[in-house]
Amino acid sequence: MTEIYDVIVIGGGISGLSAAKLLHESGLNVVVLEARDRVGGRTHTLRNKETQYVDVGGAYVGPTQNRLLRMAKELGVQTYKVNVNGILIQYDKGKSNKFHGAFPTSYNPLVFLDYNNFMRTMDQWGSEIPADAPWKAPHALEWDKISMEEFIAKVCWTSTARRLAELFVNLVVTAETHQVSALWFLWYVKLCGGTVRVFSTENGGQERKFVGGSGQISEKMMERLQGRVKLESPVVRIDQSGDNVIVETLNHDIYQGKYVISAIPPVLTTKIHFKPELPAVRNQLIQRLPMGSVIKCMVYYKEAFWRKKGYCACMMIQDEGIPIGFTLDDTKPDGSKPAIIGFILSRKATALANLSKEERKRKICEGYAKVMGTEEALHPVYYEEKDWSKEQYSGGCYTAYFPPGIMTQFGSVIRTPEGKIFFAGTETATEWSGYMEGGIQAGERAAREIMFKMRLIAEDEIWVDEPESLDVPAIPITSTFLERHLPSAQGLLRFIGHTTLFSMAAAVGFIAVKKGYITLK
Amino acid sequence: MTEIYDVIVIGGGISGLSAAKLLHESGLNVVVLEARDRVGGRTHTLRNKETQYVDVGGAYVGPTQNRLLRMAKELGVQTYKVNVNGILIQYDKGKSNKFHGAFPTSYNPLVFLDYNNFMRTMDQWGSEIPADAPWKAPHALEWDKISMEEFIAKVCWTSTARRLAELFVNLVVTAETHQVSALWFLWYVKLCGGTVRVFSTENGGQERKFVGGSGQISEKMMERLQGRVKLESPVVRIDQSGDNVIVETLNHDIYQGKYVISAIPPVLTTKIHFKPELPAVRNQLIQRLPMGSVIKCMVYYKEAFWRKKGYCACMMIQDEGIPIGFTLDDTKPDGSKPAIIGFILSRKATALANLSKEERKRKICEGYAKVMGTEEALHPVYYEEKDWSKEQYSGGCYTAYFPPGIMTQFGSVIRTPEGKIFFAGTETATEWSGYMEGGIQAGERAAREIMFKMRLIAEDEIWVDEPESLDVPAIPITSTFLERHLPSAQGLLRFIGHTTLFSMAAAVGFIAVKKGYITLK
Repeated sequence: MTEIYDVIVIGGGISGLSAAKLLHESGLNVVVLEARDRVGGRTHTLRNKETQYVDVGGAYVGPTQNRLLRMAKELGVQTYKVNVNGILIQYDKGKSNKFHGAFPTSYNPLVFLDYNNFMRTMDQWGSEIPADAPWKAPHALEWDKISMEEFIAKVCWTSTARRLAELFVNLVVTAETHQVSALWFLWYVKLCGGTVRVFSTENGGQERKFVGGSGQISEKMMERLQGRVKLESPVVRIDQSGDNVIVETLNHDIYQGKYVISAIPPVLTTKIHFKPELPAVRNQLIQRLPMGSVIKCMVYYKEAFWRKKGYCACMMIQDEGIPIGFTLDDTKPDGSKPAIIGFILSRKATALANLSKEERKRKICEGYAKVMGTEEALHPVYYEEKDWSKEQYSGGCYTAYFPPGIMTQFGSVIRTPEGKIFFAGTETATEWSGYMEGGIQAGERAAREIMFKMRLIAEDEIWVDEPESLDVPAIPITSTFLERHLPSAQGLLRFIGHTTLFSMAAAVGFIAVKKGYITLK
Repeated sequence: MTEIYDVIVIGGGISGLSAAKLLHESGLNVVVLEARDRVGGRTHTLRNKETQYVDVGGAYVGPTQNRLLRMAKELGVQTYKVNVNGILIQYDKGKSNKFHGAFPTSYNPLVFLDYNNFMRTMDQWGSEIPADAPWKAPHALEWDKISMEEFIAKVCWTSTARRLAELFVNLVVTAETHQVSALWFLWYVKLCGGTVRVFSTENGGQERKFVGGSGQISEKMMERLQGRVKLESPVVRIDQSGDNVIVETLNHDIYQGKYVISAIPPVLTTKIHFKPELPAVRNQLIQRLPMGSVIKCMVYYKEAFWRKKGYCACMMIQDEGIPIGFTLDDTKPDGSKPAIIGFILSRKATALANLSKEERKRKICEGYAKVMGTEEALHPVYYEEKDWSKEQYSGGCYTAYFPPGIMTQFGSVIRTPEGKIFFAGTETATEWSGYMEGGIQAGERAAREIMFKMRLIAEDEIWVDEPESLDVPAIPITSTFLERHLPSAQGLLRFIGHTTLFSMAAAVGFIAVKKGYITLK
């Protein structure tokens, strides 16, 4: 007789494994069906002699990602801080502008005010959006009708700020500003704790990486599951017409379970043939959440030449001729394997998909040489890359995006169970959606939804707040008095119509503070 | 030993069957794999005593759809003209405005000029877009960045024209104005011969229906294929790693072929597990082309009461409280089975998906009673409906739409073969894409691509122009001198700044012509 599982989990990424681990630890009989020959999903750590180890997928962890920090600690995986010692470079219009802090500054007070106003407006609008129901925001319909391109056009006044805003969107969600809903994007940034937290290395989403690679998180969860993870088992069929749910894999294996957790991106559920058919709204939602486009590129050098020049290897590059949009130092914590990690984002990932690996490497190194102004960038000792858009069982990276009009028309069913199927995956999270943290939150929540159905826990135990990590505490992000009250660029210009004195003085003073010429608390 | 087919066609809709029929008639060994227990795809004719027969999917045919007319004639399926005798009604702001012709008129000359300018601008922009490569249009990037919502906001000056423009988009592509790319929509309308042809009943896309239903086209093609169509055979796997292509169905049947034609909507190819994986651009394109949302609703009455009142039962309804957006008379050509067919479009199809059939019927009839001003609409004798959004093996109807930014970033691979797989389906057509006509064009073109590969025809025989139908010739659509040269609403108002005389006179004169008070050639 066929074994009947309590729960069949589809997808052996961090979300599915987190669900399975919790269910297993709660004494339930669980099996995880993973399409690939490895676990980890959109995280993947390669090991070889040239890199020692390298995360070619999701890699970063920072304060407020408390579930991921807790899970890593429990599994014995250490974190280390990404190198931020040195000057950052913004490359725009063929010029390298050096800066410190999370965002580039500008000597032009209008640009500075404009960019300050863009970030402030995003956070202000975001504060109106419910994390668990963005479709219920007071202005949901209005904001969902416009793309981030239109939002930027409305809010930013200078072309320089607009172009920086565009890179911000490309980098944060690997899609074009005109492809994504403003409502969705503002919700997404809010879920990460706002513009500063999502974008920052220090005290932000990119503060740390894992010693030995993020892939260990999934690998160690698989170990804990003691043979309950079936690799190379893509699901092709879910039949809910009988008492138990029947799940069939491409290799004709049949699993029977009381419940199912779908822990794959929404669009990948289209790969499954459902009986009975999914209801109209979900059947259409899953066609409307495409995965982003990114190629992750790691260039290895004999030495970290950028450090000699005072750079931390963080570059923000706005140049259609250079493949990479953003970089960070990817040298190992002990200083070995000096490397720069760079992201080919969105339109560029598509445009460069058909080049050879060698051609991409050459173009990237030429770009780095230009931005850092040194020939040393032209001589890498090794190159590794991963184009996530080619991956049948991810669809793309980092995450799904919502085009205009989808959140309000279809979004509300995103984690509504369909019969005995419950939905995990980072896209269904309400904190750090799109990140490993969101994957764990969603996986554990879906597991608890089933435990509630099985009367093992109470309904108010489904959603659990996570205590703050003691090892990686978050420093609160506070805007200064000036950041909150500075005029926008338009506001300033309007005001100049009456008197130029006060606003200009305030702007100049603020820039002086930001650049560290004077200190304010 | 397993039979090796020359061509395995995936999808038994009109496109796949057209491909198979041509290949079969050319002496090739072909098999068609259809997921459902019927052929026809997005066309489906129900038969019962209450309706005699009714097309619950694609139904209409008109001049310039010459391939469909040729195919119907060959298969012995007759057409009949949809009833257009009588007054049309536009219902807006709670008022029923009666009109004749393709588009509502207005007593307000500004609204009239505004709407004239909207249609004219769409056709003008459309004329710049190459039918076979919209991504190469001179302004492709610019137009692809904006949605039709933005296009309408830019072009239309009066809120009345804007709302009519919105209904035009909802009806033509079953999606919201803010969800679709302007580049794509203008291309789509151009492929139908422009705004007048796509929207018209007489001399347009909705001129005729098939006696006995459009489903016969597919059913009769299946007959011609003599057992070569396998029903209930959803494809789950395509393996191109060997000499022949291996195609596996959900019920574990294995087919081997030299070539494959995918004749399903792009998003449904996600249901197939590919070996090797699809390249990056196609793997992402197929996630980005959602199917539209529509519920087709047929209300049957004891008699065609609207005819007594002088109406032809064509209603354009702009009212959030009424489910239906557009109707036509659906009475049989011999006057039996009096009925009105109505479309629940886009946002309303989603919002009303979870009502009961009874509730939808009641709301629809109440709407008709309001618009036509008669209680008779409240007493139907039968009701039939079809929500295409629930269909796993269509995904929605009528067709796939391109959200902003997809055509230029991903669209160019839409019919690029992947190894031995060739792409048909109406979405890959260059005439009447989204219609049955486009399905036939695409199917026959894909068949000829393979025949060229097999050296059975020359390369310049792949794309074939279709001679005009002698039975249903097209009357050329010509804009009048005034339609081409009337000012836009803005233009008029600007001109009024100088002199009100000429433009007002022209506008008033034009409206007089349109309303039939005077005649002009």
